[in-house]
This record gives sequence, C-alpha cells and structure tokens, in this order.
Amino acid sequence: MIECPRTREVRLSDTPAPHFGDELITRLRDLGHPLCVGLDPHLNRVPPLFQRGDMSASGSQTPDAVEAFLLAVLDRLQGRVAIVKPQIAFFEQLGWPGLRVLERVMARARALDIMVLLDAKRGDIGSTADGYARAYLEPDSPMPVDAITLNPYLGLDTLEPFAARARDHGRGLFVLVKTSNPGSGDLQDLEVSKGEAGRKVYGAVADSLASLAAELRGPATGWSSLGVVVGATYPGQAIEVRERLPHSIFLVPGYGAQGASASEATQGFVRGPKGLEGGLVASSRGILFAADAHVSGATAWEGAFDRALETAIQELSEAVARER
Amino acid sequence: MIECPRTREVRLSDTPAPHFGDELITRLRDLGHPLCVGLDPHLNRVPPLFQRGDMSASGSQTPDAVEAFLLAVLDRLQGRVAIVKPQIAFFEQLGWPGLRVLERVMARARALDIMVLLDAKRGDIGSTADGYARAYLEPDSPMPVDAITLNPYLGLDTLEPFAARARDHGRGLFVLVKTSNPGSGDLQDLEVSKGEAGRKVYGAVADSLASLAAELRGPATGWSSLGVVVGATYPGQAIEVRERLPHSIFLVPGYGAQGASASEATQGFVRGPKGLEGGLVASSRGILFAADAHVSGATAWEGAFDRALETAIQELSEAVARER
Repeated sequence: MIECPRTREVRLSDTPAPHFGDELITRLRDLGHPLCVGLDPHLNRVPPLFQRGDMSASGSQTPDAVEAFLLAVLDRLQGRVAIVKPQIAFFEQLGWPGLRVLERVMARARALDIMVLLDAKRGDIGSTADGYARAYLEPDSPMPVDAITLNPYLGLDTLEPFAARARDHGRGLFVLVKTSNPGSGDLQDLEVSKGEAGRKVYGAVADSLASLAAELRGPATGWSSLGVVVGATYPGQAIEVRERLPHSIFLVPGYGAQGASASEATQGFVRGPKGLEGGLVASSRGILFAADAHVSGATAWEGAFDRALETAIQELSEAVARER
Repeated sequence: MIECPRTREVRLSDTPAPHFGDELITRLRDLGHPLCVGLDPHLNRVPPLFQRGDMSASGSQTPDAVEAFLLAVLDRLQGRVAIVKPQIAFFEQLGWPGLRVLERVMARARALDIMVLLDAKRGDIGSTADGYARAYLEPDSPMPVDAITLNPYLGLDTLEPFAARARDHGRGLFVLVKTSNPGSGDLQDLEVSKGEAGRKVYGAVADSLASLAAELRGPATGWSSLGVVVGATYPGQAIEVRERLPHSIFLVPGYGAQGASASEATQGFVRGPKGLEGGLVASSRGILFAADAHVSGATAWEGAFDRALETAIQELSEAVARER
C-alpha cells in the first residue's frame, strides 16, 4: 500500500503542532469572556506598594518595582483570563533591564498557564523581520510568546517570516488593520481607487490578508492564527472587516480607558457554540491602575484590582451572551 | 523695557538645542559622501575571529561575539562616516543581553563622535509612542540615539511624541515612505482617490508630513530634522517624494547588497554648496560582511573591511560630485 508521504510525516511527528487560533478560542469558550488584560506599566503609576525604599521614574529600583507589580497582577489573573498583552514599549523605556523584566514576566505568565500576546507592532523587510521572528516566535527564542502584533506598512512579503513561524510553531499573528487612536484615519481611511467603491486602505489591507488567513485556519475551531487589530472605537469598521476576514480573530483595543463600551468592542464578533466569539477585548489601564495611585496596603490593592477585573469580565460576558 | 518671556527663556538656556538636520548635513558636507553604515549583525555571519572558544548561534557567547565584532567595526569607521545605523531586530533576537550589547555599541559610537540612527521602525498610539520616545530620544534615555526610524501606519497623532523630542532635544526622525523591499508596493503603491490623479499611499504619506517637516527645518542649513525613508531600489519615486518634501533628509536603504547603484541611491539628492546633498545612503551587509566568512586573522579582516568601505565611499563621493 502506498501512503502519501505528507500524511506519514504528520503521523511520525512526536506531537501535533499547536495551533494558536484553536487554542485561544477553546480557552475563551471555556472562560465565557474575551477579556485580554494589557500589561502597560506606566512608570509613574506603579503603586508605591511595589516599590522598596527610595525610587524615582529613572531610579535603578524601577525595573524591580515593575516586575513586582506585574508578577502580583499575574497571580490575580491566573484562571480568570486566557491571555495577557504586554506592551513592549513600556519595558524598552527601561533599557535592557526592562527587557529582562519582560522576559521574566512573560515566563511567569506561561508558567501560570496564561497565554502571552506581545504587543510590539513590529514590521521590517525580510531578513530583518526574520530577526524579530527569531526573537519572539520560536521555541528556543530568548523571549518566546504565543502571538505578536505586526504592522503591515512594508507589504505582504515582510509578513512571511512571521507566517512561517505560525505554520511551524503554531504561533499567532495580529496585523494592524484599523487602530483605536483618533488619528488612525490619516492613512488607514484613505480611499483607494481600486476594488469596490469607497474601499479604504484598512479594507485593502484586510483583503490582502484573506488568503493567508484562510491558509492558517485551525482544524478544531476553524479560526485562523492570522488575526487583526480593529479598534473598539470604530465598531462600524469592525463589521466591515469581519465581512472581509470571516475567520480572523480580532484584537480589539480601546475598551475601557479609551472610551468604548463592551457592546462596541464586540461588534465584530460572530455566533459560536457558546455565544459571540472571534475576538479578544483588551483592557490595560482600566484594570491595571484601578486602585488609587497611593494605595499602600496589599489587601486594599488586591480588592480594587479584583473589582475592576470582575467588572470587565462581567460586562464582556454579558456582551458575548446577548442575541444579535 | 518689556521683554518677550519666550525670548528670555531661550537666552537663559545654557546651550542652544542641537538640531539633527543641521548637524548631520554639516558633517556630511565635511566628509564629502553620504554613506551611513548599517550595523546588522546577522548571527551566522559574525567572523570566527571575534568568537572566543566554543559558540553557536544560540550560545551564550553570541552577544559577546557581536559586541567584539561591532566595536572593531566602529573603530574602523571613526572619522570616515558621519553616522551608523544599528538595526535593533538583530539585537532583540538575542533577548535582553542583546539590548545590553546595543547599548554599549551605541555608547561607543557616540564616544567616537559617530552619530547614531537607530533603525527600529517603531509606531504606536500616543501613550505608547511616548514610551518609545522616552526609551531612545531623551538626554537621560537608557539608550539615547541621535535619530530613529518610524512607521506612519497609525497616523500623524502617533508621531507627535517623537516630534516633541525633535523640538526639545534636537533629535532626528525618519518616517517610512517608500521602502526598498520587493513587496513595498502592496500597501505603499495603492492609488488613492483624493489629491492629484495617480497619487499613491506613499505620496499621501509624504504630503501629510510636509508641514511638520517645514516646522523642523534647521537654522543653519535649512534641512529638516524630519526625514523620510525612500528605498534606493525605487529611484523614480525618490524624485517624486523630493518634490513633496524639499527639505527632508532621505534615508536610502537598498544600495549595495540589495542591488541599487550609487547613482540610483542619490536620485533624490539636490544641489548643495559642496555637491549633491540631502540624503544618507545606507549600506549594511556589503560592508559589514565584506571579508570572507571564515577569515581568521585580524589584519586580513581589517584589509577586506577597509577595501569595501573605501569602495562605497568612493562610489558615493563620485555620485554626489556629479552634475545634474
């Protein structure tokens, strides 16, 4: 009997490659809400509770304080959220000691069985993009993560080194399509001449991702490991992007501190077996800095943090449970 | 007598703020060529000469080898180039020890009076962009640089934290307009409906930068601290972008290893007091890895490096000396 070599290869491999889309959606269904907590340690907002002795924003104790703060945050998130989203800029501003903190924080998250989506918005030409992919998306990367955010300005060929790691190592990619900031329209909303009337740059970017998104669909859920960023502050555009990319998971910033409601944040979601699904709603400052800036006791801090976390979870659970 | 408070403030400041555009153009005029050497330490191409004992691409000695290699490179560049361009991805792939090497390499460059342009292509929403600006563009940043490359996809408001450091600390910014890679047209060449017929996304980005570029012009040379990236592989587009941004310094990748000639790389240059000026031509691999990969002696390595450096300097000196 002649076997297809491709099938045999799959059978002989030790473990099936993980698939980011399947893994994430399965966890979100189990939890019943799509909350992703952003880890954006604004230096001047780290509670004094986590600072030992004298410190200033530029003091040498700052990396230690950030680390202590975020490790405490992760302990409170265990079992309650599927994934966290560290924003690398807030670590880079501390130089290499900040990156060392990021490495430790991400390792702790994964040890607590929380997935990690690194918000880095990287994008560069081929050989350089390969460097970024090696930095974050390989099993032996110095700072391995489950998924990363990417910038599409340089073109589709520059996404390929990242796509290769999605295929080979089951990593997830979230490409910027329509961002949450007020000026996102400057470039993203430019109307383009080709395609259907009124199509804008963000729509053209979404269209250009369709074939790769289809290729990277998961066998279990059908959701793709190629996701997109669509700001909660533009719910109408989310519906439009969903039509162009039916199987891409949306990373939705802008909920909470940036002003969008749970209902707006879930506009691009679709019906799944356990309610609306197909996206991650990110909240950073609203949860991370829920406690009064000068809270001094651990119990008071934990209480304020937990209340903000539970409020977000409840709002988003209700939003995905509603009929449409 | 009533003095304008603003004027008095300026008079009272200790030193006039430096201006990136003026400083860079003055140095380039003195040297007679626009070469910018890219520091892209591809791990598998660092000559064995700089590796001590056993090492592999993922081995712990790699950061040390990269550091030794780049410090030797900087010693050979002193007095011969105005500026170097480290590509941060090649350091990030080594994790935080890589960033520590980058910090030391950039500090050495500045100690040797070589300016530093960090190729990071960062871009994010306001509060996050501010984190990147604090990381690299302030006098007390952990890794201070003279200039940085930026990605415009998120919109003009996201450039503002960087522009503030250009104003306050004399830093330079290079915004991606038309990149050198084969797929750069996917997004950058989309034709937009508004503006003159046939205008493309990269042209619209250039137009949107015009007022900030004008604001950031230097008092000595008239050149702006807001520059743009225009790939040498698209010389026709360089001429078009020059019309839209007459005072922006071009950072031109794609010369050498990526295939463009010195003449193509200087297409966007204009006549100045000492020849064609208004741009930086970047060459990385063609100079950095000029020596045979297995070169073992320091003298042989230095000879090959110097020959490649001199060839690039001569080609570019001739290109900017020609009439147009």
